Amino acid sequence: MYRIILDTDPGIDDALALFLALSSPEIQLEAITTVTGNVDVEHTTHNALALLTLVGRTDIPVARGCREPLVGNRLHAAHVHGEHGLGQARLPQPGIQPVEQHAVDLIIEKIMGNPGEITLVAIGPLTNLALALRREPRITQAVREVVIMGGALLSPGNVTPSAEFNIYADPHAAHVVFKAGWPIRLVSLDTTNRTPFTQAQATQFTQGESAVKTCMRQMFAHYFDIYAPLYGQSDFHMHDPLCLASVFQPDLITWQPAYVEVELQGALTMGETVAYFRGEQAATPNVLASIEVDAERFIQMFIERVGSTFP
Amino acid sequence: MYRIILDTDPGIDDALALFLALSSPEIQLEAITTVTGNVDVEHTTHNALALLTLVGRTDIPVARGCREPLVGNRLHAAHVHGEHGLGQARLPQPGIQPVEQHAVDLIIEKIMGNPGEITLVAIGPLTNLALALRREPRITQAVREVVIMGGALLSPGNVTPSAEFNIYADPHAAHVVFKAGWPIRLVSLDTTNRTPFTQAQATQFTQGESAVKTCMRQMFAHYFDIYAPLYGQSDFHMHDPLCLASVFQPDLITWQPAYVEVELQGALTMGETVAYFRGEQAATPNVLASIEVDAERFIQMFIERVGSTFP
Amino acid sequence: MYRIILDTDPGIDDALALFLALSSPEIQLEAITTVTGNVDVEHTTHNALALLTLVGRTDIPVARGCREPLVGNRLHAAHVHGEHGLGQARLPQPGIQPVEQHAVDLIIEKIMGNPGEITLVAIGPLTNLALALRREPRITQAVREVVIMGGALLSPGNVTPSAEFNIYADPHAAHVVFKAGWPIRLVSLDTTNRTPFTQAQATQFTQGESAVKTCMRQMFAHYFDIYAPLYGQSDFHMHDPLCLASVFQPDLITWQPAYVEVELQGALTMGETVAYFRGEQAATPNVLASIEVDAERFIQMFIERVGSTFP
Amino acid sequence: MYRIILDTDPGIDDALALFLALSSPEIQLEAITTVTGNVDVEHTTHNALALLTLVGRTDIPVARGCREPLVGNRLHAAHVHGEHGLGQARLPQPGIQPVEQHAVDLIIEKIMGNPGEITLVAIGPLTNLALALRREPRITQAVREVVIMGGALLSPGNVTPSAEFNIYADPHAAHVVFKAGWPIRLVSLDTTNRTPFTQAQATQFTQGESAVKTCMRQMFAHYFDIYAPLYGQSDFHMHDPLCLASVFQPDLITWQPAYVEVELQGALTMGETVAYFRGEQAATPNVLASIEVDAERFIQMFIERVGSTFP
Repeated sequence: MYRIILDTDPGIDDALALFLALSSPEIQLEAITTVTGNVDVEHTTHNALALLTLVGRTDIPVARGCREPLVGNRLHAAHVHGEHGLGQARLPQPGIQPVEQHAVDLIIEKIMGNPGEITLVAIGPLTNLALALRREPRITQAVREVVIMGGALLSPGNVTPSAEFNIYADPHAAHVVFKAGWPIRLVSLDTTNRTPFTQAQATQFTQGESAVKTCMRQMFAHYFDIYAPLYGQSDFHMHDPLCLASVFQPDLITWQPAYVEVELQGALTMGETVAYFRGEQAATPNVLASIEVDAERFIQMFIERVGSTFP
Repeated sequence: MYRIILDTDPGIDDALALFLALSSPEIQLEAITTVTGNVDVEHTTHNALALLTLVGRTDIPVARGCREPLVGNRLHAAHVHGEHGLGQARLPQPGIQPVEQHAVDLIIEKIMGNPGEITLVAIGPLTNLALALRREPRITQAVREVVIMGGALLSPGNVTPSAEFNIYADPHAAHVVFKAGWPIRLVSLDTTNRTPFTQAQATQFTQGESAVKTCMRQMFAHYFDIYAPLYGQSDFHMHDPLCLASVFQPDLITWQPAYVEVELQGALTMGETVAYFRGEQAATPNVLASIEVDAERFIQMFIERVGSTFP
Repeated sequence: MYRIILDTDPGIDDALALFLALSSPEIQLEAITTVTGNVDVEHTTHNALALLTLVGRTDIPVARGCREPLVGNRLHAAHVHGEHGLGQARLPQPGIQPVEQHAVDLIIEKIMGNPGEITLVAIGPLTNLALALRREPRITQAVREVVIMGGALLSPGNVTPSAEFNIYADPHAAHVVFKAGWPIRLVSLDTTNRTPFTQAQATQFTQGESAVKTCMRQMFAHYFDIYAPLYGQSDFHMHDPLCLASVFQPDLITWQPAYVEVELQGALTMGETVAYFRGEQAATPNVLASIEVDAERFIQMFIERVGSTFP
Repeated sequence: MYRIILDTDPGIDDALALFLALSSPEIQLEAITTVTGNVDVEHTTHNALALLTLVGRTDIPVARGCREPLVGNRLHAAHVHGEHGLGQARLPQPGIQPVEQHAVDLIIEKIMGNPGEITLVAIGPLTNLALALRREPRITQAVREVVIMGGALLSPGNVTPSAEFNIYADPHAAHVVFKAGWPIRLVSLDTTNRTPFTQAQATQFTQGESAVKTCMRQMFAHYFDIYAPLYGQSDFHMHDPLCLASVFQPDLITWQPAYVEVELQGALTMGETVAYFRGEQAATPNVLASIEVDAERFIQMFIERVGSTFP
């Protein structure tokens, strides 16, 4: 059983990760914390609330987090995820409000109140985590594990030739998080880019008139009809769902210890995750890095779980 | 009347600024918040508590703040201020504890709870302020003014040829604070370096057997006997006291609007405060920068006030 | 027919590239210019002279080039190539001297004197080329083509996680060369790392008692017996020979236009070759980048040509 | 007697430095070498030729130098010096051509051919010097001294808040020059900004109908009538003439050894000359830095010499 906080900026694949979390008996979703990323925190918070309303899980608390990156300026991916972050999905008006507590405070309280129990799953920029670390450094000892979707270690980035979106959107926060000395599993583009969900699969999977199926169909439509043709993409990549899945099925992925540091000075490479796997140059590893993935098993698992939970 | 929060890392000249605050009827000291700077936050917090105990003002709450800079590594100035931060001063055991609230939360609560009332006086690295800004961006609208001791605009730095200690110790926090869009007065080395307090003045001023005089004598002894000869200095510079004084006697200083930005990329110039005073290159001013100072009047005022309050 | 200047820092694989050049009827080797790279320019020049003496081609002029990188400090790879650059090879004393002309002047004179005729093949750091460009900018119009072994566009580097040796050794020179506006083919690690020459192949290929075979056997011995075990490598990669081969058999490689820029500011990524292949971010392509290689055909060709020329 | 090469980018104050050189019996002007700086090398070369023609000294060889900075992009100061570099001066058509030799080659040949004899006086960007150093490192041993106008050590810059024009225009070349290990005297803004030539002085000094007086009057007119009002300046600063004067009257200036390095990485501080004068941080001094100047004596000397030579 994994008690998780999902720190997220929904986002199409964030929504899919949420659906997977809610479909997985190994996961107990303690709270959702939101952050500016794919779109602004106002929208990502609204989206989180609306998604929980859609699936009838308004019992899960949502805490709104940081609006600005730790140091730099906001950056957006509305072209990928649509103006409000979830493509053309028409979600219900949220039936709940965010909790009063700020995301950073909720993260600290949950982790400090449940030592060794909480897994922090971060699938957006790492601003909330960095702030929590600076505000209460002892969370590094009290957390169970930190599982992060971010970075590109051995292959190119997806925002610049060198950098992946979540890290690029707040490289200073990522620096703080990677240097914190807590146990991190890092699910990077090196594996998530090898989890293609084809348009055919998406079409078949989202047949049906249930609210969740309709929502997913509308989200995929944005991706396949608008974004993908514009940017020469074909398949949808299951970045965040793979990260979530690796919490309870870590053997979907092969892992390798690495020392990962974030470039904060580059003129062209800002936000690059520079990974030292071995040898003279390497400092003590600070992450378990994802290297290979059994994509077929993962996609199959996703389809089965989400398909049967939200028929 | 100025209701102030003093964000500080005592530090010899921080202690002098505190004494001046407590000697000034225009100042109502609402709280002290501490931060790592001259020495670690453990010591700066202890020092703040011990100083308040020394002067019998244990009614003033002290909130402990950040241990680590926003992004980079800790840096120290123990060579300047002695191992524990206050030279050879032998202070009493603190008669109080820090409040439970974290400095960042106290700052936010005080400012949000008293809109337009609180002046934030920051005489150490700006970590607490940056965290407060990211955690609650609305403090920029609710604060009365932010008065900062830091930077070197037109003259060299004191840690590196380009950078002043408080900014260099947390340049990323300074970047966040300068970019926040709130009213800042910046008291930089350009003026504080022109406020010499000579050894003769110090000797005469600290005559007497009261606890405060003894404390000041011991602090100055560290500076004049150990530090100054080692680093080729002669006079003591009243950096933090000048900053504090400028809150209630702003006309001690002539001010000029400037756009100040912090260098975060330089190999040699990290933490430099780059100031644009006018002309094509300049963005909209974000600070009132200190240019000239009436040092004699200031030193006289300091001696009279602190001398008569703590005879 | 290709009239080439080979700019080189021999170096084991540089020597193999030279042997291939001398075995290829399509190539007319006009001159060798040397540069500091794998080892200092004193050694690389000595090596070039000794190799020509070994193969009896002392008719080819050798011009000594730059000792220091354009801006930064010298860097070496003696651990890879042995202290003198050619492993344990015992070469004859050179029977010739370098020409009096500096490499930079020779490059300029050859290119300007034979407009449209000269192909510049650069298989070391790009210092000489950068200096020639600044000294005589018109060579960009007069050169036939520039073929460079360097960089890592879509895969990791070999000196740091991000940077390839030849570029890292003089990133500023590479910047100048890539920005010059002349026709460049860039043979990067992305292809050269896929040209494995196994120990078995090396052993078989270097059987025989001729001077060249003996030399190659001694060079490979250094690599396979000393370097490779130490660094967890197995096969030898034919970086420079592939670059040379691509001059006369460009169809060994598939090429793609790209805009390549060198990171000069990064704290971790100095010397990274950042490549934009398409889309919004991309400037006008400045290189033809090597993407795929027919390694088998290339290795076969190398074995046949060098084996029959130097039996 | 000083045998000098004047490396220059005329430029108004370059022209005045040239007039001073030609008026000073201690100076034997061996050659002028030109570089892109205030305006492009085409114009600076034309200006040098025209100025020599104007004063009837067409016996002095002019060698054209580099058009592009060592690494970065060209930058101009046409707003200061007028479109062609010499304000509204109407100069005669040059009666001579530049020599065939490139400036870099002339510098090398002169210095190597006259060991210990040649003083290199550089009053523009340092591109030619850097190229000469890379092309022939032994000039560091053969030169007599290098006297440079450039940088701002203890006071602000004149292009950016941190950087002086000559260094900013080619910071990488300056880095190479400062690191070369040859004897440098550095005449920086710290002193040249304290050599005001007032409009009244200029008006009086340039009375008369001789060609040189007319030329100087037209140059000053550009400065005082167009540039100065636009940029809020009043006096003309004698940057380059002071540098030239310090060759033969070094006691006009007080000098202090310093280790000076150029910032090549800063986002805001590119080209800043960071100076370490003493203490722990300092490396071995690499320049004699100008600290104080006897401006009155200098201006007087300039007026007398130039006035009597070109009445």
